[in-house]
Amino acid sequence: MEELKQLMKSHILGNPVRLGIMVFLLSRRKATFSQIQKVLDLTPGNLKSHLNVLEKDKLIKTYKVIADRPRTVVEITDKGIQETRKFLKMLKGIIDSIEF
Amino acid sequence: MEELKQLMKSHILGNPVRLGIMVFLLSRRKATFSQIQKVLDLTPGNLKSHLNVLEKDKLIKTYKVIADRPRTVVEITDKGIQETRKFLKMLKGIIDSIEF
Repeated sequence: MEELKQLMKSHILGNPVRLGIMVFLLSRRKATFSQIQKVLDLTPGNLKSHLNVLEKDKLIKTYKVIADRPRTVVEITDKGIQETRKFLKMLKGIIDSIEF
Repeated sequence: MEELKQLMKSHILGNPVRLGIMVFLLSRRKATFSQIQKVLDLTPGNLKSHLNVLEKDKLIKTYKVIADRPRTVVEITDKGIQETRKFLKMLKGIIDSIEF
């Protein structure tokens, strides 16, 4: 029950879109804005607003690079890696503890 | 990646509070409003608003019983059981597929 309560208070990673972004970044550490948008099938506005929440909480950082044209790179931070792992472990604990 | 996209589109069960309520109900099938509120540490207004979303989607049903005093009983529906199991399996699939 304690893990369930903890889950319910996870306002940042508890959101399924933000969790999806973090799981994607966990496996590759960084991606461009448009890669994330395409792979996860999000509108630019929707992705931007979730990235703002994640960046404000220092779970990701974003910066511009100029290749052939300017791109926004989104990179998971050490805090982001730790928090996402911790959240996934908690979810796993809940799932493993129930019959379904 | 398909499971990740599916997760991100789960507006009902993707919310951590609603998922917590459904996981609690999955193990016991029904509970009173005040039991859920106490066990999951929610305010009445917060619980009520999440129950409304779940009931509108027919994942739970609520009804009044008169014991020593009127109580609201919250019961998981067959659809609720199926959808919650499906959602948990999807989460498990995502968690099992990543290293963390």
